[in-house]
Amino acid sequence: MLTMQDALTALDAYWTRAGCMKVQPMNTEVGAGTLNPATFLRVQGPEPWHVAYVEPSVRPDDSRYGENPNRLQTHTQYQVILKPEPGNAQDLYLGSLEAIGIDTAAHDIRFVEDNWASPALGAWGLGWEVWLDGLEITQFTYFQQAGGIALDPVSVEITYGIERILMALQGVSHFKDIAYAPGLTYGEMFGQAEYEMSRYYLDEADIQANQALFDTYAAEARRMLDARLPVPAYSYVLKCSHTFNVLDARGAVSTTERARAFARMRRLAHEAAELWADRRAELGHPLGLAEPSTAPPAPVEDTENVAGPQTLIFEIGVEEMPPAEVDRTAGAVRDALTALLAGTALRYAGLYVHATPRRVVAMLGGVEPREDDREETVRGPRTTAPAQAVEGFARSRGVTPADLGRGTYQGNEHVTVTRTVAGRAALDVLAELLPRLVTGLRSEKNMRWNAPGLSFTRPIRWLLALLGEDVVPFTVGNLTSGRTTYLHRTSAQPVVDVATAYEYWAFLAEHGVVASTDTRRKMVVRQAQELAARTGGSVDVETYAPLVAEIANLVERPTAILGSYDPKYLDLPADILTTVMRKHQRYLPVQDPAGALLPHFVAVANGECDHDVVRAGNEAVLRARYEDAAFFWRADLQTPLADMRAKLSLLTFEERLGSMADRADRIAAVARALADRVGLAGEDRVTLERAAELAKFDLGSQMVTELSSLAGLMAREYAVRAGETEAVATALYEMELPRSAGGGLPGTVPGALLALADRFDLLAGLFALRSAPTGSSDPFGLRRAALGAVNILRAHPGLSGLTVSEGLALAGARQPVAADAAALAEAEQFTVRRFEQSLLEAGTAHAHVQAVLRRGADPAAAEALLGELDTLAGTPAFDRVTAAVQRVRRIVPADTTAAYDPALFTDEAERALHRELTRTSEALKGDTRLTAFTEETGALAGAVDTFFDDVLVMADDPAVRANRLGLLAAVRDLADPVLAWDELR
Amino acid sequence: MLTMQDALTALDAYWTRAGCMKVQPMNTEVGAGTLNPATFLRVQGPEPWHVAYVEPSVRPDDSRYGENPNRLQTHTQYQVILKPEPGNAQDLYLGSLEAIGIDTAAHDIRFVEDNWASPALGAWGLGWEVWLDGLEITQFTYFQQAGGIALDPVSVEITYGIERILMALQGVSHFKDIAYAPGLTYGEMFGQAEYEMSRYYLDEADIQANQALFDTYAAEARRMLDARLPVPAYSYVLKCSHTFNVLDARGAVSTTERARAFARMRRLAHEAAELWADRRAELGHPLGLAEPSTAPPAPVEDTENVAGPQTLIFEIGVEEMPPAEVDRTAGAVRDALTALLAGTALRYAGLYVHATPRRVVAMLGGVEPREDDREETVRGPRTTAPAQAVEGFARSRGVTPADLGRGTYQGNEHVTVTRTVAGRAALDVLAELLPRLVTGLRSEKNMRWNAPGLSFTRPIRWLLALLGEDVVPFTVGNLTSGRTTYLHRTSAQPVVDVATAYEYWAFLAEHGVVASTDTRRKMVVRQAQELAARTGGSVDVETYAPLVAEIANLVERPTAILGSYDPKYLDLPADILTTVMRKHQRYLPVQDPAGALLPHFVAVANGECDHDVVRAGNEAVLRARYEDAAFFWRADLQTPLADMRAKLSLLTFEERLGSMADRADRIAAVARALADRVGLAGEDRVTLERAAELAKFDLGSQMVTELSSLAGLMAREYAVRAGETEAVATALYEMELPRSAGGGLPGTVPGALLALADRFDLLAGLFALRSAPTGSSDPFGLRRAALGAVNILRAHPGLSGLTVSEGLALAGARQPVAADAAALAEAEQFTVRRFEQSLLEAGTAHAHVQAVLRRGADPAAAEALLGELDTLAGTPAFDRVTAAVQRVRRIVPADTTAAYDPALFTDEAERALHRELTRTSEALKGDTRLTAFTEETGALAGAVDTFFDDVLVMADDPAVRANRLGLLAAVRDLADPVLAWDELR
Repeated sequence: MLTMQDALTALDAYWTRAGCMKVQPMNTEVGAGTLNPATFLRVQGPEPWHVAYVEPSVRPDDSRYGENPNRLQTHTQYQVILKPEPGNAQDLYLGSLEAIGIDTAAHDIRFVEDNWASPALGAWGLGWEVWLDGLEITQFTYFQQAGGIALDPVSVEITYGIERILMALQGVSHFKDIAYAPGLTYGEMFGQAEYEMSRYYLDEADIQANQALFDTYAAEARRMLDARLPVPAYSYVLKCSHTFNVLDARGAVSTTERARAFARMRRLAHEAAELWADRRAELGHPLGLAEPSTAPPAPVEDTENVAGPQTLIFEIGVEEMPPAEVDRTAGAVRDALTALLAGTALRYAGLYVHATPRRVVAMLGGVEPREDDREETVRGPRTTAPAQAVEGFARSRGVTPADLGRGTYQGNEHVTVTRTVAGRAALDVLAELLPRLVTGLRSEKNMRWNAPGLSFTRPIRWLLALLGEDVVPFTVGNLTSGRTTYLHRTSAQPVVDVATAYEYWAFLAEHGVVASTDTRRKMVVRQAQELAARTGGSVDVETYAPLVAEIANLVERPTAILGSYDPKYLDLPADILTTVMRKHQRYLPVQDPAGALLPHFVAVANGECDHDVVRAGNEAVLRARYEDAAFFWRADLQTPLADMRAKLSLLTFEERLGSMADRADRIAAVARALADRVGLAGEDRVTLERAAELAKFDLGSQMVTELSSLAGLMAREYAVRAGETEAVATALYEMELPRSAGGGLPGTVPGALLALADRFDLLAGLFALRSAPTGSSDPFGLRRAALGAVNILRAHPGLSGLTVSEGLALAGARQPVAADAAALAEAEQFTVRRFEQSLLEAGTAHAHVQAVLRRGADPAAAEALLGELDTLAGTPAFDRVTAAVQRVRRIVPADTTAAYDPALFTDEAERALHRELTRTSEALKGDTRLTAFTEETGALAGAVDTFFDDVLVMADDPAVRANRLGLLAAVRDLADPVLAWDELR
Repeated sequence: MLTMQDALTALDAYWTRAGCMKVQPMNTEVGAGTLNPATFLRVQGPEPWHVAYVEPSVRPDDSRYGENPNRLQTHTQYQVILKPEPGNAQDLYLGSLEAIGIDTAAHDIRFVEDNWASPALGAWGLGWEVWLDGLEITQFTYFQQAGGIALDPVSVEITYGIERILMALQGVSHFKDIAYAPGLTYGEMFGQAEYEMSRYYLDEADIQANQALFDTYAAEARRMLDARLPVPAYSYVLKCSHTFNVLDARGAVSTTERARAFARMRRLAHEAAELWADRRAELGHPLGLAEPSTAPPAPVEDTENVAGPQTLIFEIGVEEMPPAEVDRTAGAVRDALTALLAGTALRYAGLYVHATPRRVVAMLGGVEPREDDREETVRGPRTTAPAQAVEGFARSRGVTPADLGRGTYQGNEHVTVTRTVAGRAALDVLAELLPRLVTGLRSEKNMRWNAPGLSFTRPIRWLLALLGEDVVPFTVGNLTSGRTTYLHRTSAQPVVDVATAYEYWAFLAEHGVVASTDTRRKMVVRQAQELAARTGGSVDVETYAPLVAEIANLVERPTAILGSYDPKYLDLPADILTTVMRKHQRYLPVQDPAGALLPHFVAVANGECDHDVVRAGNEAVLRARYEDAAFFWRADLQTPLADMRAKLSLLTFEERLGSMADRADRIAAVARALADRVGLAGEDRVTLERAAELAKFDLGSQMVTELSSLAGLMAREYAVRAGETEAVATALYEMELPRSAGGGLPGTVPGALLALADRFDLLAGLFALRSAPTGSSDPFGLRRAALGAVNILRAHPGLSGLTVSEGLALAGARQPVAADAAALAEAEQFTVRRFEQSLLEAGTAHAHVQAVLRRGADPAAAEALLGELDTLAGTPAFDRVTAAVQRVRRIVPADTTAAYDPALFTDEAERALHRELTRTSEALKGDTRLTAFTEETGALAGAVDTFFDDVLVMADDPAVRANRLGLLAAVRDLADPVLAWDELR
């Protein structure tokens, strides 16, 4: 039995052998190994640094009196920093798992996208959680920024969660049962401290005292920065951070205080980091400068020696890409390669791109050995130039004057030389083009690593480039092309050479790498259904299609494994169970024919492994998570709803917009205002009032604190169990709808109004702060909120013509900050733009969308109009009316008022138009619906046509001209409210 | 090359293999590994605990900006706790040195007495510094108390000084040069932090902020104690402690604050420890109870099978005793064994006791096989009793009435029975007696260890008890007697059996253990002189006799090694060099024939070792110490005396008596008052005034801070160099004299008055606080001070009859606390008692001492009187006078006044006596000197004799009787001031 003590020793031995220094934990409380200056300060600047250490990490908020089996106020991190990232950190890491006795071939070990960020530290990085049979055991990050400073070189940070690893290795289900040392358990060693420190953090810490400490620490940090002493300054930043965490765990941090404290700490941390870097520079970088990673020289190939069309295989080897990036990158590579090839004269027969998490493979079929030859003409002097000039030109081009041709340039005749330029060899073309492809690769969120000039979602580690038998020779970043590929890391021979491009696919297949995403997706479905069938159940692959797609991009070879859990957990709401399976574990739930959950799941491992081991591991993880969930469930059920609601005051929403309680209060107020506006009464009104009181209470539940995606779902569950009416429970549930772009919408009016109030509040508040989303950053989900509001209004046309503008105005009036007209107008425009985009994405004709969008603030109306337009468009009547209106609109200047004097009419056509206009106006009685308008204006359209045929609008007599324009303007004004006619083409 | 990182890893591996748990350093700043709750709390209570950890120990006061080669604000301790102490901790420790590559056979490794105490923690223990070739590398302590609570079981604490060990192993002379990890030095790793944290601690820390922190921490600790949560409470005690250290390093702690802070921390630490123990008991002692150590059964010997007189060897094996205890214990064992044997009838030929640091050996020669038989007589009824009673008595004793004898008891004749009681076998006698000897062993300061019933200066580890060939069989504590002895730990076979008592001495000698202290002392002297002679020098073994004696008791086999140091250090005052050699290193300085130092020293190792290795090690240690001293010397020379004097305000003297500056001010004032009293004027007065201003300034020097025994010596050096007069420098030097009981005394009057002022201040102050020494505890050295004052006064009879009482009164009047008459009287009595004791110890006849002691408060006068007494005693004239005075004193009641009326004389003898009395009184004119008195009172003595021959003092007539007694009382009163006549016998 490997004790925890043994494991730490083994890690020390492993990492020191790997060249790391061993240092001691920080001697002041820190929340994570990252905070230790051996990480936070040392990742700054250009000096190399390789270090490993244990860090007992104190998280007051995780205090549970030692009762929760997986949660501790002090847990043990093992931290490794490799600076610069050495290129093989993943392999080194896997070696360390072997060092603590983990058979990496038997287990399913995966690198699952996880991007780490610490706003308080101004730090972020890209990387993974490492999963051991579904259990997160390590955070693996390429550090991009710390203290708000971009890091160069990039460091790798590896953070092991030691208690979790040991619980898994020792097969115990409570941290207290970990064998810490021979004959001693973790609980025996640390149980009392765990209990007592929990008591301190949760119940006993003196709030005023800790507030005073925070201020004192911050002031000392500030003074030390002014004294240019980053080390003591930073140590006080750490003390600030811990004290803040204590206050937070005591529930003593108001929204404003939190924001202020974070800003203060972030600023101090930034300055400490910057000062550290400066001081190191002043000291002349005592540890030297990190060596940049450079590419080995490219092989020399005889580029001329290629006969006949060949196949190109270009494999870009990447450390595990996020699933979403796998397909995206395949497409991007296809597009980029196509474009690059278009810039050459190289012919090829076809282009195929596949991708797995670890590789993107482009295949070009039938690549000709060379580019086609082409002619190149060079212009010389004008033919009229002195003979000497012409001769000189010919000489300079290596031809005789007799060889010169002629050509006309801008009307002048010049002598020319025309030469045939030989096409370059395919290898040369590709050797120039493929590196450009690599340097051009980008993802949604890119990182740097120790490769000059490259930036991508994760580090690119190898490039296989074979044209037939030959390597396409080039270097890019720190890589050199070659014929080497990397199979599963646990393969007998994980790194192998490929002889020719033709063998590549067979080679991959033979070694169990499934290059095609589509194939992998099908394999997941097939294997999952087969396994589920054994339990008499099935997997709802349609509902879970996005999950299947994600899973397929998490592995190179799907290996489905059937696991089970204790049926007792089926007592929990199914949403909880599926959320845990789906979101946290990427398991496919198994259901019976009636759609009810069966106590089974399908996990999908990557490639070969010991199924029993992997099953057992995954089952243990799920058990722990369900145990947690059951604990939260029971605890929440014993908490009155009002108590949960009260906790919202401790949750930050936004500094200037107050706490989540403030926001819930506003939502309630806005919902009531909306209800007044739409005249909501009776039972529905009662329901809305009660639901408004409880709005968002479940954010204060333990379950939602833990599983935030269950917000709303848990509100419904807890509300019903607390004796609220079904209607109130439903309204609380529905106020969180839609949960995603195309998600279900509130079905009841109280639900709809609450959901609208929620979204109007969000939009009005954030736009008042001028915090519209930029680029891909939309931390408050304003895009989703706007579209949600639109879709709710579309789905509820009965809401008395309630518009976005009205909703925003009602919400704006209730913000704690000034929501001025400009801000609300911007919010409205933003919302309408979302509407527009969704209509376009739904395939609505662009012109139609534009035509109705003027009414976008009343989505129900706009939608109705669009329906009419879709129906009418293309009908002769509509086309005639449209043509007439457009004709009128073209000739009438925008500032012309609809005023005319029938006495000035000189022509019958004028009078006829006047008559028809008068009649139509009276018939419509202000009805601006398109169908009515179209029906009523057939004659008017004829009158317009006749008018234009018979009358010269632009008469010489200014009075007559003005009168005629006034008449047409009246026609325009009749049509104007109906549609944006100009948009129709 | 073993790096520091390797060393820590090796220690981890070693101690975990030895059954220790590895834990992490404390995550708040601590000054030592002892403070980590893994020590401080876990040594409490009965649970076993074996732990090892690294502890970066923060000592703000040791901040030196990284410039001092041996001093760091954060140094690395490696801490081991073995609870209960396992009995072989020394061997385990030596094994750990081997584990980090130290060849314990080549080096000189010694356990040198060092008793650890932390008043702030209420903690103490007995043990050693471990020396590696003269370098202190480890503190090894048997923990007796922590938090003011006696510990049971006793733990062993082993604290390695890692930087020192690594500097020695790697042969580097600055901590920054330690190879920390491959390719990285300690300086590269930690240099910047060392500098910056030094800046913080020494220059930058905000004092008010840290004071506020201290109070906040203390308050939180208090609250957590009240909440019965010892773990968070104690963590706040640690924060208090560190903050206090920061304030102290910033020089911001006044005397009063220091005392208050210490009291506060001590109280909190005590309560935390107590509460921890209580809580553990309430939890049912989760780690179980430590097994007590018990003795194996004693061998069964055939005690009857001994023929002829035998030799007994009784060897008590002890872990290294303090040198002073070696001789003391030998004597104590001799006395105890003699007394114990006297209680038996066992005859033996002789008793010899020898001792080394590790063993006390008693040899009894010619022990008879059995005790002598003896007769035992039992008294029966009186012979006059009825026959039945006599017969019954005979029957009850198993004899016939005819066998009865007779004896007289209190005048009555009884029947008796006399029986011969056979003596017990020698083995039986010894088996009962020797354990009593062991349990009765005590030293000046005793400890407990894991042996029930035993208490001694250090643990007793084995008992060899051989009577001839036989083991004297017994058990005591956890030990069983046997024939096993322990040689040098590095011997090829360190643990061996001895066949017979006769072989024992030869056996020891053969294996290089020199049992006789005297022999070892001679070996030290001989070897040292031989080595010194090689340099053309010698060792002043007379001056250094105490050191030689100490050295001889630090080793079992002296092995002198000649070392050298750079002659450049000879520029430092010789006192510094010799103090370092003598006090810190126990080296014998080598001097040239003129007495000047040569750059050589003699170190004395224990037994066989590699002389080159040991020499190099010791030389390196001395070099480092001299480098330190040279640094202090240079720094001090650049510091104005006034600045050093100003620093005294930061040194605590005693809470209620103020700082050392306050004390120096008082000394100056008292010295001036004494000068006034004795009429000091002229140059001497000028000298005294200036020296008084500077009094004790050198306590503020770096040198004296480091080497406190140089106080006074450095004052002289620095004063001269700062341009003070020789006289002032001398006075400052002399004010610290005498330095020890028999030490040199001030030669000048200014020096003497300052020295007296110093001592009177000390005595008056401490007695005012009712802090007289008790038992062996005399923390302020009051005994030495009192005797010093006496001796100074004895040496300076010219001080106008200045008395102890006057001095104390002058000093008492200047104390910040009330020094009332009773307190001063007590101080005076205490001082006179010291005088008495010193006289007795000097061999002065008890009667003479008592006779003069009435004048003890005027030691010069008392000494003069004693001189007279010694001269006169035994002379007929004196004897006659004495007899006469004593005769008078015997008959005259104490309350009789010297009043008589010559008119009432009835007898010539009365008149003659009256005449002689009158004449003598006139002749003496109040001269109370003994010689004069004796000379003048010859005739008076005759008159007294005649008076008694002729006159009946107790006449029937009351008036006559009263008159005669009055006359005699007048004689008495004349003699009374001269001497305490009654004491002479």
